[in-house]
Amino acid sequence: MSKIGIIMGSQSDLPIMQKAMDIIQKFDISYQVNIVSAHRTPHRMVQYAEMAVASGFQVIIAGAGGAAHLPGMIASLTTLPVIGIPIKSRNSIDGWDSVLSILQMPAGVPVATVALDGGENAGLLAIQIIGSHDIEIGKKLCDYREELKNKIIQSDKNLS
Amino acid sequence: MSKIGIIMGSQSDLPIMQKAMDIIQKFDISYQVNIVSAHRTPHRMVQYAEMAVASGFQVIIAGAGGAAHLPGMIASLTTLPVIGIPIKSRNSIDGWDSVLSILQMPAGVPVATVALDGGENAGLLAIQIIGSHDIEIGKKLCDYREELKNKIIQSDKNLS
Amino acid sequence: MSKIGIIMGSQSDLPIMQKAMDIIQKFDISYQVNIVSAHRTPHRMVQYAEMAVASGFQVIIAGAGGAAHLPGMIASLTTLPVIGIPIKSRNSIDGWDSVLSILQMPAGVPVATVALDGGENAGLLAIQIIGSHDIEIGKKLCDYREELKNKIIQSDKNLS
Amino acid sequence: MSKIGIIMGSQSDLPIMQKAMDIIQKFDISYQVNIVSAHRTPHRMVQYAEMAVASGFQVIIAGAGGAAHLPGMIASLTTLPVIGIPIKSRNSIDGWDSVLSILQMPAGVPVATVALDGGENAGLLAIQIIGSHDIEIGKKLCDYREELKNKIIQSDKNLS
Amino acid sequence: MSKIGIIMGSQSDLPIMQKAMDIIQKFDISYQVNIVSAHRTPHRMVQYAEMAVASGFQVIIAGAGGAAHLPGMIASLTTLPVIGIPIKSRNSIDGWDSVLSILQMPAGVPVATVALDGGENAGLLAIQIIGSHDIEIGKKLCDYREELKNKIIQSDKNLS
Amino acid sequence: MSKIGIIMGSQSDLPIMQKAMDIIQKFDISYQVNIVSAHRTPHRMVQYAEMAVASGFQVIIAGAGGAAHLPGMIASLTTLPVIGIPIKSRNSIDGWDSVLSILQMPAGVPVATVALDGGENAGLLAIQIIGSHDIEIGKKLCDYREELKNKIIQSDKNLS
Amino acid sequence: MSKIGIIMGSQSDLPIMQKAMDIIQKFDISYQVNIVSAHRTPHRMVQYAEMAVASGFQVIIAGAGGAAHLPGMIASLTTLPVIGIPIKSRNSIDGWDSVLSILQMPAGVPVATVALDGGENAGLLAIQIIGSHDIEIGKKLCDYREELKNKIIQSDKNLS
Amino acid sequence: MSKIGIIMGSQSDLPIMQKAMDIIQKFDISYQVNIVSAHRTPHRMVQYAEMAVASGFQVIIAGAGGAAHLPGMIASLTTLPVIGIPIKSRNSIDGWDSVLSILQMPAGVPVATVALDGGENAGLLAIQIIGSHDIEIGKKLCDYREELKNKIIQSDKNLS
Repeated sequence: MSKIGIIMGSQSDLPIMQKAMDIIQKFDISYQVNIVSAHRTPHRMVQYAEMAVASGFQVIIAGAGGAAHLPGMIASLTTLPVIGIPIKSRNSIDGWDSVLSILQMPAGVPVATVALDGGENAGLLAIQIIGSHDIEIGKKLCDYREELKNKIIQSDKNLS
Repeated sequence: MSKIGIIMGSQSDLPIMQKAMDIIQKFDISYQVNIVSAHRTPHRMVQYAEMAVASGFQVIIAGAGGAAHLPGMIASLTTLPVIGIPIKSRNSIDGWDSVLSILQMPAGVPVATVALDGGENAGLLAIQIIGSHDIEIGKKLCDYREELKNKIIQSDKNLS
Repeated sequence: MSKIGIIMGSQSDLPIMQKAMDIIQKFDISYQVNIVSAHRTPHRMVQYAEMAVASGFQVIIAGAGGAAHLPGMIASLTTLPVIGIPIKSRNSIDGWDSVLSILQMPAGVPVATVALDGGENAGLLAIQIIGSHDIEIGKKLCDYREELKNKIIQSDKNLS
Repeated sequence: MSKIGIIMGSQSDLPIMQKAMDIIQKFDISYQVNIVSAHRTPHRMVQYAEMAVASGFQVIIAGAGGAAHLPGMIASLTTLPVIGIPIKSRNSIDGWDSVLSILQMPAGVPVATVALDGGENAGLLAIQIIGSHDIEIGKKLCDYREELKNKIIQSDKNLS
Repeated sequence: MSKIGIIMGSQSDLPIMQKAMDIIQKFDISYQVNIVSAHRTPHRMVQYAEMAVASGFQVIIAGAGGAAHLPGMIASLTTLPVIGIPIKSRNSIDGWDSVLSILQMPAGVPVATVALDGGENAGLLAIQIIGSHDIEIGKKLCDYREELKNKIIQSDKNLS
Repeated sequence: MSKIGIIMGSQSDLPIMQKAMDIIQKFDISYQVNIVSAHRTPHRMVQYAEMAVASGFQVIIAGAGGAAHLPGMIASLTTLPVIGIPIKSRNSIDGWDSVLSILQMPAGVPVATVALDGGENAGLLAIQIIGSHDIEIGKKLCDYREELKNKIIQSDKNLS
Repeated sequence: MSKIGIIMGSQSDLPIMQKAMDIIQKFDISYQVNIVSAHRTPHRMVQYAEMAVASGFQVIIAGAGGAAHLPGMIASLTTLPVIGIPIKSRNSIDGWDSVLSILQMPAGVPVATVALDGGENAGLLAIQIIGSHDIEIGKKLCDYREELKNKIIQSDKNLS
Repeated sequence: MSKIGIIMGSQSDLPIMQKAMDIIQKFDISYQVNIVSAHRTPHRMVQYAEMAVASGFQVIIAGAGGAAHLPGMIASLTTLPVIGIPIKSRNSIDGWDSVLSILQMPAGVPVATVALDGGENAGLLAIQIIGSHDIEIGKKLCDYREELKNKIIQSDKNLS
């Protein structure tokens, strides 16, 4: 059983979603990845969302572009926290459609939206949600932040 | 059995949707109106779309605001033409979210989008679709256009 | 006599319009394609629209970019349903001008607008409109949707 | 015979167009004002544009809102200079649709676009165009500028 | 000790933040509310974030408008999940500044962004995060969704 | 003495301005081209504008990008009609800054704005302004329009 | 002799500019306020800028709306630091024109731009610039920040 | 001790920041450059800002992209003037996020914002601020402006 469910609307979203998988793997957390399209496989989407708790998921990451309905529809079908990644897909209008159709959910059904093409942050947010009640993950998150800090310090040193 | 199915995501969309009903009524075409929310009643939405052909609908008009998933999701669940009305709801960012999340559908699942808050045009488009194979409605559409023309001519006369 | 009239404002719009033709051909529906410019050949545009019914068209697809007046002007000259494709042409401001000048039609004269560069969806919408009163096309549309679904399922399998 | 033709797409555009008339009147230049809708009276629009030279017009001012096709279509039907006023009409998306559908004309058919709701400037631009070969109007334009300057100087004095 | 920390950059944000408090109260979850400004009380902000875990918080909700740095800065100072509410404050440019300065966080430091002025959804997301490992809250969330559904069904009945 | 004054804010604007020169040359109208920067040579700009009438200009074309003040400032210093070309220069935000800082002139000082990078249309508009009181140019404009029309008709023929 | 020159393009900008004056007065710094329009009084603008150093100014604050050329033109005519306030004037397109035509200055001629309608911040920035080499003002700025902090702390206390 | 502190949020911002350094070097003013991230090294950022006066800085230049909090946070932690450079980083939405999250600071804490990617202008503005009370730098600024002017004059000559 995987703790994090990762879905994307199209195979072309994979490079962005891979960044989420990479960071989750780095934290040794189990995940399951699927391609589920809100518009091309609506029934599978419903099924996926309804099985989410039974699948053991504690959080779902959904990425989509253009009129991006996948994150919001998954959120409407489960009470698990859903993280949405707006993807600047080929036909998107500079990413604005992806961002707005994921972010602007009506009262009652939130989607935790991250930055455009923010695959890594979606993964980290999922880890933080699991980490909010798991001390060991919490510690790893502190180590990860330390790493980020040290990279900046190192690049500052390189500058001079 | 009604020829046109009209749905909206929330009761607050009614004033805009009413304009669609008014023009359809003017053309003496039967319609059925419902409140169906993509995010609050996803299963009813699926059911609604799957029953659309059996309900006798030849076209569906769906209005929604914000992250407006209703028109696109209905379109993914039926092969009837779906007309989407982007509604500038209270929490919409000036209507941009409504427009983009309805218009920018991925290849394979079109939504016939009309102008922001374009209730009357959604009704007219539905009538035109039915009228494309119904001579009598076609004639009424010509009369309607004549009316529009005469109003402009009259207002031009009033000016001088 | 062709069932669908396809027009574009400039030869440079052809790659997008071709996607509409491809999908219509796949459904074995007859169409006629023309280059008609609202701004460079306004009289031919008027003529084209007025002959649309006599040409046997049941629906018209019009694509244009920038200050894109072709779909709306055609719509003002016929009562057939007109589908507009906003095209991100070379001098367009990221497509916004194309989208807004096609979508935001005044009450009385709707244009069924599809996504920016949405050639395939324009074709599909035309097919759906014809299919709304043609059982055989309706069945083909179901098959087409099945195809879309199977591609997603296959790509999901390939992932694991 | 009037030197300036003024048209608007709808009676609701009158308050903005009135500003153009006011300034033209102030310069004692003859004008003719009409309501001509691109979408509701397309044939009258064609006729209007084709009669423009015979009507004695040296320049045309056209105002419209939303998917504002009137200025561009008039420009495509005459070789007189056409001034376009984007109007922030009731259903416009904050004026962006009006601006872009007037401004972004394709190569070959320019529209001299002024600011959103810029009725007065449209009138002034028409006057400047006529004034470019009419010394007396040129002088009046200098006087008008002097007036503007003096108002600023006066308001600066009032401040202290 | 409170499970949810709620902060806002200014007292004027209170009406939006109140919606978060209302829904959290409805779920009988403890919370602590504070006004902490990133720009006016930066040291208190640092202190607040560093004490967040010790305060017992499992998740933090931060609302701000304009150049809204509070959610992102808090997120940089704790590894708890941080929910950001973009607020359309008085001097905001239609909310775009609030949305973009909260959403577009760099890789490494996510903020779970909700809709513009989305106070209720921020509260619900916090509840969902806590509910992801608390069966009782999970049940209450299902009941809440049921309520939402029933309201829609009721409004649909009222319509006919 | 040249009839049309052409200025640009920077040498990098030349490719766009060249299109204006090309079309003006095609109409055998005299023009004078200069680089005059509002921000780097403000006094030369003032001088240029004040000498415009004495230089024999009947109309001025000014192109600039980013915070594009050249067209508006020239317009404030002469009563000749000024045509502004918003140029999508290297540091422009997708052309929006160029468009808005040229188009949105205050009442009293109009700039006849053409499309983003619309060099050819700026040239044509200048020709139309001169042509509004010069029958021969008027005729040439009709011929030019005929050419445009024939190109479309030819490309339509090539299609079939 | 005043240390800060304050100018605005129109009397209607006064309410925003007043906020700059209020904060400067609070810091007991001398200032001179004028209405100078880039477009209606261009020569006075040139004169104003050229006299700026002789006037004793160490910094200039310029506010304008729409196609807001005043701050940038002043900046091109003096080497003093110029602070620009984009003002959301009546005919501005939601303030975007004001912001972009002040902010997006070309290399060589910077304008220190503050937030839309940011009168108070423009005043404070001018004070900070003077304060960068005046210890007493530096101290007052610290006190002012302390005030801001205490207001937040007080409003936080009032909350509980 | 350096007079100007230059910081950037990430090493990838260096090409833009280098332009600031180049112009400052040309004016022989001392500067210190560092990489300090608001989100990855928040404590170092606080430290940096608090040491700014002691470091001898008279002005700070801070560049950042996306949700760009560095300039505003530095400004909240020092009373020195802070110049912000919005950088169009890789994941920025066309630069809008960078611009708005730097520009739209709340009353009390200004950031002197320059154009998107405006490294050179940030440097110049810093020089102007120092030059406002240093006659020699003032003279060099005049020389620099003269250079700019001469380049334009030369390029104008080259044109003919």
